[in-house]
Amino acid sequence: MSTTKTPIVDIHTHIYPPSYISLLQSRTTIPYIRSFPPSPSHRLIILPSEDADPSTSRGRPIGPEYYSLASKISFMDTHHIDISVLSLANPWLDWVEPAAAASTARGINDEINASCTLHPGRLFAFGTLPLSGGQACVVAEIKRLKTLPYMRGVILGTTGLGAGLDDPELLPIFTALQDAQFPVFLHPHYGLPSEVWGARAGEYGHVLPLALGFPMETTIAVTRMLLSGVFEAVPELQVILAHSGGTLPFLAGRIESCIVHDGHLASSGVIKDGKFGKGRRSVWEVLRENVYLDAVVYGEAGLRSAVEVNGGERVMFGTDNPFFPPLEEGGDGKWRSVEVNYEAIKGVLGEGSKEAEGVLGGNAVRVLNLKVD
Amino acid sequence: MSTTKTPIVDIHTHIYPPSYISLLQSRTTIPYIRSFPPSPSHRLIILPSEDADPSTSRGRPIGPEYYSLASKISFMDTHHIDISVLSLANPWLDWVEPAAAASTARGINDEINASCTLHPGRLFAFGTLPLSGGQACVVAEIKRLKTLPYMRGVILGTTGLGAGLDDPELLPIFTALQDAQFPVFLHPHYGLPSEVWGARAGEYGHVLPLALGFPMETTIAVTRMLLSGVFEAVPELQVILAHSGGTLPFLAGRIESCIVHDGHLASSGVIKDGKFGKGRRSVWEVLRENVYLDAVVYGEAGLRSAVEVNGGERVMFGTDNPFFPPLEEGGDGKWRSVEVNYEAIKGVLGEGSKEAEGVLGGNAVRVLNLKVD
Repeated sequence: MSTTKTPIVDIHTHIYPPSYISLLQSRTTIPYIRSFPPSPSHRLIILPSEDADPSTSRGRPIGPEYYSLASKISFMDTHHIDISVLSLANPWLDWVEPAAAASTARGINDEINASCTLHPGRLFAFGTLPLSGGQACVVAEIKRLKTLPYMRGVILGTTGLGAGLDDPELLPIFTALQDAQFPVFLHPHYGLPSEVWGARAGEYGHVLPLALGFPMETTIAVTRMLLSGVFEAVPELQVILAHSGGTLPFLAGRIESCIVHDGHLASSGVIKDGKFGKGRRSVWEVLRENVYLDAVVYGEAGLRSAVEVNGGERVMFGTDNPFFPPLEEGGDGKWRSVEVNYEAIKGVLGEGSKEAEGVLGGNAVRVLNLKVD
Repeated sequence: MSTTKTPIVDIHTHIYPPSYISLLQSRTTIPYIRSFPPSPSHRLIILPSEDADPSTSRGRPIGPEYYSLASKISFMDTHHIDISVLSLANPWLDWVEPAAAASTARGINDEINASCTLHPGRLFAFGTLPLSGGQACVVAEIKRLKTLPYMRGVILGTTGLGAGLDDPELLPIFTALQDAQFPVFLHPHYGLPSEVWGARAGEYGHVLPLALGFPMETTIAVTRMLLSGVFEAVPELQVILAHSGGTLPFLAGRIESCIVHDGHLASSGVIKDGKFGKGRRSVWEVLRENVYLDAVVYGEAGLRSAVEVNGGERVMFGTDNPFFPPLEEGGDGKWRSVEVNYEAIKGVLGEGSKEAEGVLGGNAVRVLNLKVD
């Protein structure tokens, strides 16, 4: 454990609890887990591009780092992480039969909450919503989640109830989240249609869908929320964007410029005198009032943008564990994918600075109320 | 004209010469120009989303700012731009019948080159390639372009010969460009498949395809080039990325991290010991050795990333004229979309600094050899 006064908090760290693993093992279409005999090891296949791969090395090997709490605690200790805010990894429960949605979500959420009780003060969690169960089912689970002592928000993909996050049907759900003071951890899964990667995509491993598809999906989802006026309809809604907002800090200026130069938005009254009408705010304002970012951006330039655009008090350290493990074990067991984000925080904000301590943990403690009652 | 020693150079400024306008007026599928009587004004429809719009205000009004050289010079004078490097606007000649490709390209390129002779020292140009005519036709036009006195490179979309810019069939073309010392101005047009914008996209005007689709298209195209090894096969190839690289400066760290953590790339020998095998370089190295960016990013955070990642000596001012005109005329005729990019350069690099002068024009003079013989 770190000896600094401010704990180090990982807000982007996933787990597939054992009951979720069992569910995936019972399936034959994505998401699923299977072995390819004679190899005894199991592989996790969650992306369409992985499923299209006919090889026996499709997807990725799945071991204890995906489901074992001991592995998570060990990873935390190795990387000096005091507190982890666990979230179910994608694709969550988007694919569950509607009739089973409520009970499946309750089971998963209770299991993750129970895990947190085993390491009091070191583990908190974002809940998972039973989206396939529909609006009322989701709102009921949000209210129930609020009664679970270690839940601090929810993780959400970009499809919502099926029509994306600018779907007006989601407004009661966003309102319930606002009322519960539960931030939404917005996380990608679906990427972009595979045609954009071209005929040679298979040669490039997972790089294009993971490096580009994921952050672009997040950026599109939150921009659609912004343009539809979600943040005016639910003004206290707080979203935490995975991967430092995808590409949002870099594109914010272009989005704002395109909005204020759009003849259609002007003639429809959405913008007036170069500003949103109907009380809407600029992209910059929304980013500083409703949006938090994790610091999972793998370099100083990206982190500097995140801090500059959203404010250092709105950026929070994360690891994306158990994804991006080292291909070869180093001597100290440290993951390069984690170290590079630590180094970026030090490089941009200065080691030991107040702002660095905020990004490393202080902001998360404040925003997510990470105290044990 | 500016009185500073270093001229102000706009490297991202488009024109549709009159012969191109005539071509578009003869067409009924995108790209095309038509009027909707009783309105006498003409509208330009170039994007699929515009063509799907059934209204008579689809696309955008097209006036002299699109084809008149006098308008371009007036725009330059208003904004203190000394030199413009003209390029045909999208969608270039991608759609031309193969048999007509060579002659159409020669006509357009000669017309633009002739325009430059009318304002010696103030206008240079990027040529347009007859891509639909195939490899030999394109290489021949590159050699011919080199003989035109005002040509300083070529503008290129992301489809190449039809299979994207990681198509091995393009290597002879990239080699011809390298041999001609012609940088490629890489510019988006096709955006992303419209399904990613969702059911409500029509309410948001052009914002999603322009603000997100364009920069994401550029990012995907250049990342595919990078992964396919274009920059190792043609090591002196220089590309200038529109819109400050789309999102590349922000995503460079994530792309590099995904590459060095990709099991497929490791097992196929493309990466070894966390680095590209076969002499490949890191993303950061390629960006600093083969890639230039324009400064069309509409804000300080984006420009700071561009300068930090690619280096201040590799970033060049641009306006994207005649796109993004003000919706309402201001008193001084200045365009907000231009001013915001000027302000970002001053804000990030300091007014009058050597680095600001480089971005405003010095870099373009050096890279594009903007001297009149």
